[in-house]
Amino acid sequence: MNLIVLQETDFIDSTHVRLTGRRLEHITQVHRATPGQRMRVGLLNGKIGSGEITSFTDQQVELRVGLQDSPPPPLPLTVILALPRPKMLKRIIQHITALGVKKLVLLNSYRVEKSYWQTPWLEPDKLFEQCLLGLEQAVDTQMPEIILRKRFKPFVEDELPELTANSLKLVAHPVGGDACPVDIHKATTLAIGPEGGFIPYEVEKLQETGFHSVHLGARILRVETALPVLVSRLFPAR
Amino acid sequence: MNLIVLQETDFIDSTHVRLTGRRLEHITQVHRATPGQRMRVGLLNGKIGSGEITSFTDQQVELRVGLQDSPPPPLPLTVILALPRPKMLKRIIQHITALGVKKLVLLNSYRVEKSYWQTPWLEPDKLFEQCLLGLEQAVDTQMPEIILRKRFKPFVEDELPELTANSLKLVAHPVGGDACPVDIHKATTLAIGPEGGFIPYEVEKLQETGFHSVHLGARILRVETALPVLVSRLFPAR
Repeated sequence: MNLIVLQETDFIDSTHVRLTGRRLEHITQVHRATPGQRMRVGLLNGKIGSGEITSFTDQQVELRVGLQDSPPPPLPLTVILALPRPKMLKRIIQHITALGVKKLVLLNSYRVEKSYWQTPWLEPDKLFEQCLLGLEQAVDTQMPEIILRKRFKPFVEDELPELTANSLKLVAHPVGGDACPVDIHKATTLAIGPEGGFIPYEVEKLQETGFHSVHLGARILRVETALPVLVSRLFPAR
Repeated sequence: MNLIVLQETDFIDSTHVRLTGRRLEHITQVHRATPGQRMRVGLLNGKIGSGEITSFTDQQVELRVGLQDSPPPPLPLTVILALPRPKMLKRIIQHITALGVKKLVLLNSYRVEKSYWQTPWLEPDKLFEQCLLGLEQAVDTQMPEIILRKRFKPFVEDELPELTANSLKLVAHPVGGDACPVDIHKATTLAIGPEGGFIPYEVEKLQETGFHSVHLGARILRVETALPVLVSRLFPAR
């Protein structure tokens, strides 16, 4: 937790918050709270600044906060990701949030096992929780938007053209295509298949919508390794 | 398993191998083996080619193999990593191997908990196993070398100068320093601290040995996200 993320409901007046639970625990155990101590705080979807402990007990801690700095700029990147297995989903949501992606579509694909859609980790509060962990890690406050789409074809045909208008459209595919470009400076949509890749029909459907196949070289990487590699390659200086 | 990695002991004559256990399971369950079927195989620390199933039973599968292609080129990168917590260690070894790093030093640091050094995952056969998973994933055969160093100061003072001779020396540190360079074309040593970072004394010791502090921008990333981001940034076209 490199940032304590505040929500509107934490405020007891315009400049003071009262925290309990996981954040209290962090402040007492990691920061070893003492009155007057300062730490980095940020308002969810708002500004970042510092908080100073004014009082604390075993039950709660109060901080006086000042918020003046903007969060880091979002990446101009939408990620469309074939739904990963539940074990990986949590980590991937955290990675993606920490990297600064602000729009993520979790999409069905032929090689996505149907059972993956049943995981409780797809419930809105669970997704929110994992995003929050990513924001706390990366010192960011801007919650990403996550969209779930259980049907590939209607999504690609009906929604994707509008969603990706005016963006560079890339589909990461280990076989064929061009080397993934480096250091582009424009809005981008990046589609990433499941372990085993999109099937040819799916790649074709994406290509019909204007997507170009790109690869990362001879090595085939797991989705959770490929994702930061791709993001860093597209936007190295962010 | 995008590559079936063979070892010398698998060969029953100069062109045939006999496989059991995990690889047999993969061939029967994922490839749904049929005689004559071909798949990608590679010899540990050797060449890559294809194998053709000549016979199989519940107990074993035999393949005729031809090995003619070189594995992907190694990254000209040595990673020095503060020992991560055991839960992350396995994944990080796999990530690093899949990315093409061929030399990894796992080093103690002030913020590494002593108990981390007790994990069975540091035993040579366990490390080998995780590296093998990384090679199978990335379609590579060249086993990385992993060096364990439980004492920071003697390692940095006595071994590091020779280990890093003629390489660009970078220490990833979220605070201060320059932005991490992009697309360098030279041998590099990259030191990465534990969660919470190297302490100032450690950064100074590394700087005395010629290391430059670099950061990745405003976002603070977990080691397992930062690693692929750093590698991709230093060597985007690899």
